[in-house]
Amino acid sequence: MTDKKPILLIALGGNALIQKGQTGTADQQFENLNLPMKQIAELSRKYRVVITHGNGPQVGNLLLQQESCDEVPKMPLEVIGAMTQGQIGYMIESSLDTALMEMGVDEEQDFVSLITYVVVDENDPAFQKPTKPIGPFYTEAEAAKLSYNLVKTDKGYRRVVASPKPVAIVECKEIKKLIDMDFIVICCGGGGIPVVRKERRFSGVEAVIDKDLASSVLAREINADIFIVASDVEGAAVDWGKPEQRLLRKVALPEIKEYVKAGHFPEGSMGPKVNAVIQFVESTGNRGIICNLDDIQKSVEGVAGTEICQ
Amino acid sequence: MTDKKPILLIALGGNALIQKGQTGTADQQFENLNLPMKQIAELSRKYRVVITHGNGPQVGNLLLQQESCDEVPKMPLEVIGAMTQGQIGYMIESSLDTALMEMGVDEEQDFVSLITYVVVDENDPAFQKPTKPIGPFYTEAEAAKLSYNLVKTDKGYRRVVASPKPVAIVECKEIKKLIDMDFIVICCGGGGIPVVRKERRFSGVEAVIDKDLASSVLAREINADIFIVASDVEGAAVDWGKPEQRLLRKVALPEIKEYVKAGHFPEGSMGPKVNAVIQFVESTGNRGIICNLDDIQKSVEGVAGTEICQ
Repeated sequence: MTDKKPILLIALGGNALIQKGQTGTADQQFENLNLPMKQIAELSRKYRVVITHGNGPQVGNLLLQQESCDEVPKMPLEVIGAMTQGQIGYMIESSLDTALMEMGVDEEQDFVSLITYVVVDENDPAFQKPTKPIGPFYTEAEAAKLSYNLVKTDKGYRRVVASPKPVAIVECKEIKKLIDMDFIVICCGGGGIPVVRKERRFSGVEAVIDKDLASSVLAREINADIFIVASDVEGAAVDWGKPEQRLLRKVALPEIKEYVKAGHFPEGSMGPKVNAVIQFVESTGNRGIICNLDDIQKSVEGVAGTEICQ
Repeated sequence: MTDKKPILLIALGGNALIQKGQTGTADQQFENLNLPMKQIAELSRKYRVVITHGNGPQVGNLLLQQESCDEVPKMPLEVIGAMTQGQIGYMIESSLDTALMEMGVDEEQDFVSLITYVVVDENDPAFQKPTKPIGPFYTEAEAAKLSYNLVKTDKGYRRVVASPKPVAIVECKEIKKLIDMDFIVICCGGGGIPVVRKERRFSGVEAVIDKDLASSVLAREINADIFIVASDVEGAAVDWGKPEQRLLRKVALPEIKEYVKAGHFPEGSMGPKVNAVIQFVESTGNRGIICNLDDIQKSVEGVAGTEICQ
């Protein structure tokens, strides 16, 4: 049933759709997807491919829109996340479709974009101390009327939500079967829609999940042969931003763990990517890569990006 | 591989999520889904189930929100449609998940919610004469600044878009394979994201697709054994709204076609439902049903709704 091609999981950073300085029109988002999707279509000749993606700017835009309009009931964050899975899933799938058509293989290659929700632990300490800022900035007067957790920033008040650890991907069983059937699967958008399980029921929670950590959980569950975190940086570097900055090309687990301890990878940017890849490599012994979106193919060939190995 | 249970395609009307008079909060939408999803979960014991759904009110809400906010780039209608597939797909899937959990079968039953786009013909005459009103109402002054096709109504100006005929469901091949594997498949939300194919590329178009017609295309493609259109009406009635109004319980194709000709089923409400079911029954010879959301199980058993037969 399966042709046993190795499995490649690619986690696309937010800039695969909206690049720095862009407002994020639909045209920009489709245009930005061209190069990553061409590479992924090419790679699908040799690999069974799973694609995950971020959703930060898209969630921000939807929150801003719903705050601007009192006529329509506001949707909770989990539903906003679901909307971005629809939006981005469609954009990725149709861009991939175009790339596969250009290669003349769209008829034989199956691909789907799935709604995915991810279980988090309701006792996760992150819920006690929400730290992830999302959505628009508020004036003090606006903030006083809001029931959200808020944080004061230079630009005004901002809502903060928890970023709990992803525990399990609900659709994992289905995703595995689809990979077995050689489907390209687009899933786990924005790290997944966060839900908690209470008795016989999943309930959405007001939280966001780090998409690299969720992708790492999925990569381990499906036993990916290669896990790639692709964004707008070339790879992981030590002494980032200093004159002696040095890109790591191939680095063993013990060495990169030392760099983590020494604080080389800041929280909120490279930190989660490095942790996500470390967890994957530690658990599977397989290849874990951090690379630029333009270098996905090169990094699979071993000539770009940062590869973490055992 | 398949247990060869018969295939049941259920097209859920918009009121499966937002009922008349409701604003459409997330809580309302989840609550409304309870009863339909309980029935569908029960039916999944004996049938392989495919679920499609409308998205009219949700599209309206998103359009209103994006019109209220100038800070964020406005998304084209096709992307708005994709967002609602994410939102509603998640709501349906997680409600179904809860219902399956209550039956204790969520572990063995696979289910997925898929992004779906649907090809329309760029030469469809509907594009020459857009008739489907969507989104908010505008004053004359607001309308003068807009580049949309507009229609004047009692409550102000309103945008109109084309409602072209659905030609083919792009993910049909994948959906068939999933049904074969006994997955419950949620797809074709809002009739699908409308795209046209130009050479080697699909492009989204500013249009909406009738979800009953698209569901009928899908029901024929997958050769469903039963095709059900479920909404807030008991079934198709002749002399609707008159003292002699009469619900049709079981009606043969030639008879219902006479009623269509005689204008018993108004465009924009019962008309498309009846046409969708007629096309299905004519093409497959299988059972086609129009029923109330509360009567899905009963209508499968043959004791509620309107059944059209050859």
